[in-house]
Amino acid sequence: MRPSGRAHDAMRSVTIETGFAHHAEGSALIRVGGTEVLCVASIEQRVPPFLKGKGSGWVTAEYGMLPRATHTRGSREAAKGKQSGRTQEIQRLIGRSLRAVTDLKALGEMSITLDCDVLNADGGTRCASITGAWVALRLALGKLHRERVLTTVPLIGQVAAVSCGLTDTGAVLDLDYVEDSAAAADTNFVLTAAGGIVEIQGTAEEKPFSEEEFLTLLGLAKSGMKTLFAAQDAAVAAAEAA
Amino acid sequence: MRPSGRAHDAMRSVTIETGFAHHAEGSALIRVGGTEVLCVASIEQRVPPFLKGKGSGWVTAEYGMLPRATHTRGSREAAKGKQSGRTQEIQRLIGRSLRAVTDLKALGEMSITLDCDVLNADGGTRCASITGAWVALRLALGKLHRERVLTTVPLIGQVAAVSCGLTDTGAVLDLDYVEDSAAAADTNFVLTAAGGIVEIQGTAEEKPFSEEEFLTLLGLAKSGMKTLFAAQDAAVAAAEAA
Amino acid sequence: MRPSGRAHDAMRSVTIETGFAHHAEGSALIRVGGTEVLCVASIEQRVPPFLKGKGSGWVTAEYGMLPRATHTRGSREAAKGKQSGRTQEIQRLIGRSLRAVTDLKALGEMSITLDCDVLNADGGTRCASITGAWVALRLALGKLHRERVLTTVPLIGQVAAVSCGLTDTGAVLDLDYVEDSAAAADTNFVLTAAGGIVEIQGTAEEKPFSEEEFLTLLGLAKSGMKTLFAAQDAAVAAAEAA
Amino acid sequence: MRPSGRAHDAMRSVTIETGFAHHAEGSALIRVGGTEVLCVASIEQRVPPFLKGKGSGWVTAEYGMLPRATHTRGSREAAKGKQSGRTQEIQRLIGRSLRAVTDLKALGEMSITLDCDVLNADGGTRCASITGAWVALRLALGKLHRERVLTTVPLIGQVAAVSCGLTDTGAVLDLDYVEDSAAAADTNFVLTAAGGIVEIQGTAEEKPFSEEEFLTLLGLAKSGMKTLFAAQDAAVAAAEAA
Amino acid sequence: MRPSGRAHDAMRSVTIETGFAHHAEGSALIRVGGTEVLCVASIEQRVPPFLKGKGSGWVTAEYGMLPRATHTRGSREAAKGKQSGRTQEIQRLIGRSLRAVTDLKALGEMSITLDCDVLNADGGTRCASITGAWVALRLALGKLHRERVLTTVPLIGQVAAVSCGLTDTGAVLDLDYVEDSAAAADTNFVLTAAGGIVEIQGTAEEKPFSEEEFLTLLGLAKSGMKTLFAAQDAAVAAAEAA
Amino acid sequence: MRPSGRAHDAMRSVTIETGFAHHAEGSALIRVGGTEVLCVASIEQRVPPFLKGKGSGWVTAEYGMLPRATHTRGSREAAKGKQSGRTQEIQRLIGRSLRAVTDLKALGEMSITLDCDVLNADGGTRCASITGAWVALRLALGKLHRERVLTTVPLIGQVAAVSCGLTDTGAVLDLDYVEDSAAAADTNFVLTAAGGIVEIQGTAEEKPFSEEEFLTLLGLAKSGMKTLFAAQDAAVAAAEAA
Repeated sequence: MRPSGRAHDAMRSVTIETGFAHHAEGSALIRVGGTEVLCVASIEQRVPPFLKGKGSGWVTAEYGMLPRATHTRGSREAAKGKQSGRTQEIQRLIGRSLRAVTDLKALGEMSITLDCDVLNADGGTRCASITGAWVALRLALGKLHRERVLTTVPLIGQVAAVSCGLTDTGAVLDLDYVEDSAAAADTNFVLTAAGGIVEIQGTAEEKPFSEEEFLTLLGLAKSGMKTLFAAQDAAVAAAEAA
Repeated sequence: MRPSGRAHDAMRSVTIETGFAHHAEGSALIRVGGTEVLCVASIEQRVPPFLKGKGSGWVTAEYGMLPRATHTRGSREAAKGKQSGRTQEIQRLIGRSLRAVTDLKALGEMSITLDCDVLNADGGTRCASITGAWVALRLALGKLHRERVLTTVPLIGQVAAVSCGLTDTGAVLDLDYVEDSAAAADTNFVLTAAGGIVEIQGTAEEKPFSEEEFLTLLGLAKSGMKTLFAAQDAAVAAAEAA
Repeated sequence: MRPSGRAHDAMRSVTIETGFAHHAEGSALIRVGGTEVLCVASIEQRVPPFLKGKGSGWVTAEYGMLPRATHTRGSREAAKGKQSGRTQEIQRLIGRSLRAVTDLKALGEMSITLDCDVLNADGGTRCASITGAWVALRLALGKLHRERVLTTVPLIGQVAAVSCGLTDTGAVLDLDYVEDSAAAADTNFVLTAAGGIVEIQGTAEEKPFSEEEFLTLLGLAKSGMKTLFAAQDAAVAAAEAA
Repeated sequence: MRPSGRAHDAMRSVTIETGFAHHAEGSALIRVGGTEVLCVASIEQRVPPFLKGKGSGWVTAEYGMLPRATHTRGSREAAKGKQSGRTQEIQRLIGRSLRAVTDLKALGEMSITLDCDVLNADGGTRCASITGAWVALRLALGKLHRERVLTTVPLIGQVAAVSCGLTDTGAVLDLDYVEDSAAAADTNFVLTAAGGIVEIQGTAEEKPFSEEEFLTLLGLAKSGMKTLFAAQDAAVAAAEAA
Repeated sequence: MRPSGRAHDAMRSVTIETGFAHHAEGSALIRVGGTEVLCVASIEQRVPPFLKGKGSGWVTAEYGMLPRATHTRGSREAAKGKQSGRTQEIQRLIGRSLRAVTDLKALGEMSITLDCDVLNADGGTRCASITGAWVALRLALGKLHRERVLTTVPLIGQVAAVSCGLTDTGAVLDLDYVEDSAAAADTNFVLTAAGGIVEIQGTAEEKPFSEEEFLTLLGLAKSGMKTLFAAQDAAVAAAEAA
Repeated sequence: MRPSGRAHDAMRSVTIETGFAHHAEGSALIRVGGTEVLCVASIEQRVPPFLKGKGSGWVTAEYGMLPRATHTRGSREAAKGKQSGRTQEIQRLIGRSLRAVTDLKALGEMSITLDCDVLNADGGTRCASITGAWVALRLALGKLHRERVLTTVPLIGQVAAVSCGLTDTGAVLDLDYVEDSAAAADTNFVLTAAGGIVEIQGTAEEKPFSEEEFLTLLGLAKSGMKTLFAAQDAAVAAAEAA
């Protein structure tokens, strides 16, 4: 039995609230169980130096965690004067995942930054960030389309992410903090609604795992995705109806 | 007429929601009009080096603003690698204000850090931070008292803060962003429920102001305090009843 | 009786020596009792990015303290790799105080930086910095006027600063280090020769103070200002006569 | 046809030279085609704070690239004052991969740091680092065993790594720089000699890929591993025979 | 003829004023022509980690330049967040020069830091720093001796420094800023009163120089030393008589 | 007898291998006894800001040491976030030494950076860096000449460097690590093939040395130079013949 009492293939409850950030072009406050991430899209009329004059846009992400999002207070990265390796690894992952489903040529020479700030953490913050950030990005692109800045919504897919792992109770879907701390292996899957793989990050924490175990985890992830895509669709529909 | 249509001595609506930070010993999400700050208290069983072995506790604060809390996205301080002078000035002010009403001897050798993170900004973020942080601090101290770690709630006062300023429409209470940007002078008042002054920071932005004008601003601040203390009291009562 | 034997409304001796910095457009070495600050004005033909092309000038300040200006040696900020929050708070205060009395439009697109470096510290270094920096600024602007770069001396006021506080011996003027360390409350007043208020920073160190006490401190500050303005006038007159 | 003329399932030539670092407890200069990484193991008699007194050891890694290891000179990270996100992501991956095959309890309270410095880069530097670092770690642990500091060689597996990708010429093994820059997707596989998975990092650069494509890449990686394990075995045998 | 009108073997005027830093154990404000450096000795009852428990003391130096010590304002190193390579090179030179004449064993486990801050610069600031720092160090050590903390004044020599160079007007002693900027070669000599060499730093700025030219510069330096040692002796005698 | 058994005027063996860095315009892996430095020249079509539009080129150097180039592992400067004072002092020395023999006007508006990375250290790394960097620079300039970017090879001399010192066994040539750690004095000589002096850095570690001792060290250095110039000549000839 899982610590939370969930079945091995049960997601935690997922809700996505839009409009939380008053000034942003798109925002989504995603809650996956006790994990809560504010994902905010900001459009800027410039691109990084390496893209100047190339007719292509850019999508990037930054990630942060409020000091007391966790059980014990962590140092504030702004006060320490640098972002940790973990933070940088996560924000690079979020950025890559969203770029993989954006038509950067169609976006044209502008940048969209997704700020993912964890307000409460209970495992799976990077996956929740990706799932929420896609909604914020979708809303910002929809706004550009409605305002006729763009002739299309330049997205070539819908992405969401979930982590699965091998625990004492076997292979399970959507690890919470307690499970994540004790898992023998865990894998983050970033998948598209069309069934494609955008990113896979699998890590053996204690001992190597087998191809078969890996495929079990992938199967769990695919089954959990339905909940995530439905929550994304509902959030976008509600926001655009408003 | 003020840009918001408010009377010159009218506060914006104030609400304080507690318990937003799941893991913290005390937390308050304060909303003052469109300004929204998450204030979180964390207790740690250690004091800064200069207090070691002195039998006294410590209260300090850190302040941050999410990159898109404002109209245009600001750089993330963690990514830039340092906190701005403005950030440091504000967090020092919050810390001093709370220490002035805490009985540090009665607290004993532990530290309480108040993290004030601005989720949405519309002027007055440092004042909202102080008002909200007092609630978070009060809840954390109350918890220590209930758990019999402390024999009293070591607070010697209740503080809240508001900014007043001289604008085109005269002296006004509780500046929002539009007013703050254009004020000829503004002053932040940190006052206690017992009528005492904890901090005053008055600044002439464009031209010096007179003692009489200053006293008018102080009068407005005092009148606005009632709303803030009532919101604090209600939040604490609701949280402790729960 | 005050530790220094001074009357409660007595300033320390104040002297201002100009020309100490050989290469600068204006400089003032101010001594207020045992506090000694070198204030140096540098003119540069450029403005910060946010002012480019707006036809307005800029006045800013930087503050530092030599490592052994104090009783025990402090770390060198350049070696630590960052300025403390205290340093940044002070240099922002100095900059705001001087901008409040400068006609930035009349200055035109150039910048004046005031470097205030504390050579010896005995309390009141930020106030001495403001008082000395005004002289350095005045001399630099006078030079631009004499050289016909400017058609006026673009100053709309004369500022000086002093700190007052509530101590064991009551409300007193011009705190020295011993008094400052033990004061129940202290307030820095930045006032103009015309009687206006430019900045007020009042802080209760131990317990809140009353409006009446605050007004007593303001009265002391006003009385002490005469000495400071006279010292400034004498220094400017001597420098311009030379 | 691949740019290098290799068959789709052909590794580049792999050589591992030991003893390059004169002072280290273990070192391996690995060459995989034009990629050349110096991997150096250093034993230190201390563990990170979170492991103190827990009877467990630690294995960690640092990664760097000489400024002109690449076609155009990159900035020196020491001069810029920080390690890039890419650097941190890679060194975390190397550390995790080696810890997954080390018996940290049997190592006892000491640390081994693997420094992986890229002397020449032609794609696949993180994979070459892992493969070479395992040899350096193995030699350092063997030395501790021979010197009777440890009663066993505390390794529970042998790891190596290779990247595979989807390119214009299909799924290919061991991407070089030209292929890596243009691949639609690439995946780094860290596998053990016993057939286990230690880390998988798959990334769609341009468009999502399918589960079937992923399994093809995994199959290629497994076939390439033989060459890597053989090169590791030969290097260890030669070094220990010397 | 030299730009200053001096003879090729003429020093600039040299004065050393002691006691400028009120709180320090020793201080010397040295003026060599238009160059002015405040040299301050601070005694601390601790040694760097590598000397702990070894029964030996430490002497070190830090160097800084006020932003407007020069013709045009330079950035403040504390604000930039790091000391330049030039600053570090100079402070290492000062520290080495003073350690070479201190009996660190006789000093015992304490540290003396020499802060050398340039108030006005006109060439030769590193040499003036060494000459002044020796006086500050001598006074601090004399104080420890008078207070019977030490049974001797643990100095094994007296050092001073001067720069000589090859200019348009030939080999000259004690370069000022104008000469230094245009010299084909210059050398800093740190010599003892007993005729020994402590440091030599010779640099060809434009083209290599010969051994003969080098010996001419050394001869000039030796002749100039008399003035420096006399100024040091006078300053120490005056300070200790006071 | 010297620890290494060498005669007092014997150099260690010197070899210089070119072409080690695959992508660079020039590279030299120099070995002087157990010291091994990879020196790499990179040409860039831009000059530092202070040279823009002046028709002159620039030559500069950066220096680094792999963490385990030494007996015990040192911290990685990139991870610490700054270059040490020693590193900066050395890279400034290398840059000056090479600029002194380069015709920067004839080079025109481009920059050459010499990266000197120590792979193994056994004393004399800065001198080996200079000697090796000259070869890398020479090869890069030769390439520009062969490709007719330049009409000449803009070098006005050939430099190499060696350190000599006063040890227990007297004045000796080419200190290794053991000798360097214990030398009473040591001096780095950067000399040209034409017999000129480019840089001299002499340091008394324990007690001042005499002019006569200094001249003995200079004599040893001159005798050792032959070996270094011959190794440089051979390396350049072999590289250009290839």
